[in-house]
Amino acid sequence: MATPNTPNVSPPDLPLALTMGEPAGIGGEIALKSWKLNPSSPGFFLIDDIARLEEMRDDLGIDVPLRTITSPAEANGVFAEALPVFPCPLTDRATLGSPSSNTASSVIRSIELAVKFVTDGLAAAVVTNPIQKNVLYAAGFGFPGHTEFLADLAGVETPPVMMLACPDLRVVPATVHVGLKKAIEALSANVIIEQTRILHQSLERDFAISTPAIAVCGLNPHAGEDGAMGEEEKIVITPAIEALIREGIQVQGPYPPDTLFTQSSRETYDAAVCMYHDQALIPIKTLDFAGAVNVTLGLPIIRTSPDHGTAIEIAGKGIADPSSLVNAMDLARRMAANRAVFEAAKAS
Amino acid sequence: MATPNTPNVSPPDLPLALTMGEPAGIGGEIALKSWKLNPSSPGFFLIDDIARLEEMRDDLGIDVPLRTITSPAEANGVFAEALPVFPCPLTDRATLGSPSSNTASSVIRSIELAVKFVTDGLAAAVVTNPIQKNVLYAAGFGFPGHTEFLADLAGVETPPVMMLACPDLRVVPATVHVGLKKAIEALSANVIIEQTRILHQSLERDFAISTPAIAVCGLNPHAGEDGAMGEEEKIVITPAIEALIREGIQVQGPYPPDTLFTQSSRETYDAAVCMYHDQALIPIKTLDFAGAVNVTLGLPIIRTSPDHGTAIEIAGKGIADPSSLVNAMDLARRMAANRAVFEAAKAS
Repeated sequence: MATPNTPNVSPPDLPLALTMGEPAGIGGEIALKSWKLNPSSPGFFLIDDIARLEEMRDDLGIDVPLRTITSPAEANGVFAEALPVFPCPLTDRATLGSPSSNTASSVIRSIELAVKFVTDGLAAAVVTNPIQKNVLYAAGFGFPGHTEFLADLAGVETPPVMMLACPDLRVVPATVHVGLKKAIEALSANVIIEQTRILHQSLERDFAISTPAIAVCGLNPHAGEDGAMGEEEKIVITPAIEALIREGIQVQGPYPPDTLFTQSSRETYDAAVCMYHDQALIPIKTLDFAGAVNVTLGLPIIRTSPDHGTAIEIAGKGIADPSSLVNAMDLARRMAANRAVFEAAKAS
Repeated sequence: MATPNTPNVSPPDLPLALTMGEPAGIGGEIALKSWKLNPSSPGFFLIDDIARLEEMRDDLGIDVPLRTITSPAEANGVFAEALPVFPCPLTDRATLGSPSSNTASSVIRSIELAVKFVTDGLAAAVVTNPIQKNVLYAAGFGFPGHTEFLADLAGVETPPVMMLACPDLRVVPATVHVGLKKAIEALSANVIIEQTRILHQSLERDFAISTPAIAVCGLNPHAGEDGAMGEEEKIVITPAIEALIREGIQVQGPYPPDTLFTQSSRETYDAAVCMYHDQALIPIKTLDFAGAVNVTLGLPIIRTSPDHGTAIEIAGKGIADPSSLVNAMDLARRMAANRAVFEAAKAS
């Protein structure tokens, strides 16, 4: 397995490995729809239970041929004619709309296989369908979510970085799934520095931006207005920015949060580092809910995912929107191609 | 002067009273440009120093005739041919780009006159140009900002409510100009209840919405996810919502902040009550920076203002964008017309 300092560089014509996700959710449906909508090359293969996919396809009337593959190497050859499925049999029958911990081991196995295929040089990137965390926890899954599990599989010690990306905006929340009061307490110069370093490296390597411009958002209204509305900008954020500039990273801020995401502001930077979950997610979802993609930075492998959940409440109704999954796969392809070019240039 | 429980209802054909704002900023320039761009009826008059406006007009080459009026009653007759100016002489020469406390008493006098004209039934609404708070403070101004000064002039004891409005979204931040950590501490069920009551009344009376639907935003990521990421939804926000529903106000929430402002969500409510400054201001400025207007609810008079500051750094350059001021005046006209219809229906 690759070490954290060795980015996985796959030939960009390899297929993408798409995980099953929660089988009671919309993952299967959006995967089937994506094959129809997104004939881009290279293709993708789904790591899933083919019998349950055939049943869902027939029930929903989605006209997609499915074909079992026994190795990712077969995926590109099959993709033009059928959606390739690498077998990951369900340990129990899945009922759309009713998640169960009885299928948790299959969900986890699908993720493990996807990571292994990329690490072994058989797939270009991992794209994950949404999981239902509570049923995984009930089955003994010991990680808060996908990201931490992937970090563990990859042997990474620095926490990975979550990025949300749409065509008009890239944001990184420095703190993520924690209450707002605790997020403020958890904010430190080190957290901002570590995340911004990883972001900077990925913008160069995976997004093909030669000198990335990074904007750092303030925490308080008007970025604290010189201390009148909060001290975190002076005590935490500005020192982090100064340290990053000394490392040669082009970082500016802290900027007032309310004006950092206007159209004219967005044109001035390649990515914004935000101080908490909703400071990052409100602007990107307000701008482009269907287009936003979740990207995990700081892993040796490339990993993207749609920016929505399992949507249990609409599973099996045939109305799930595959846009975010299609965008997640398109971005994974571009990242893999950019990384291959970047690493080749570095090596030459 | 009207008491807080007696809304000021002016005949909707009265002119709007526009204040001077900081004379070293862009207020004069956007007022001149607005007269050219916005020949809507009823017109507006500016409470300002005509000599300084004439000089600015000539320097910037903005072709606008100016005419002194001695009473607001003359404004509509003049408006088609010239921008009416009610005299408010500067106590010292103003230099564009260099705010000075020497002109503070004129700035304050302009606001007092505007409120008096509306209260006396001579103008339909107050529209305020941006002020430079630090020079007012230096001159002894004893209020945090416009809103508190207007509340004092109007004899209102319940704190007024700030609303930001653009064609696609109306938001009310329950806490405003305070650091984020303190905003969380200041949040209480009472604050949410009081602000939502005032919002509800104004949506009916000034926005002509017969049964307003109000969405209340959570504080924490995913609205706390049932307590896993913060308790404020359970302890503070949900009890406030329940109390408001018992009063017959149509309120729903608390909603996850990151998805409350997507296009499909916005269509489900008339206004959103947000828990802190940037939760409200990020989505509206991301959507529509030039179109957003600041509205003060809970005063007996109608008051709007552009949603930007004095823009000292571009004052005198001729590049200031009057869009937000034009929108603020258009909204003030609509609010005055709606209020007149509402109060007439109530009285009949």
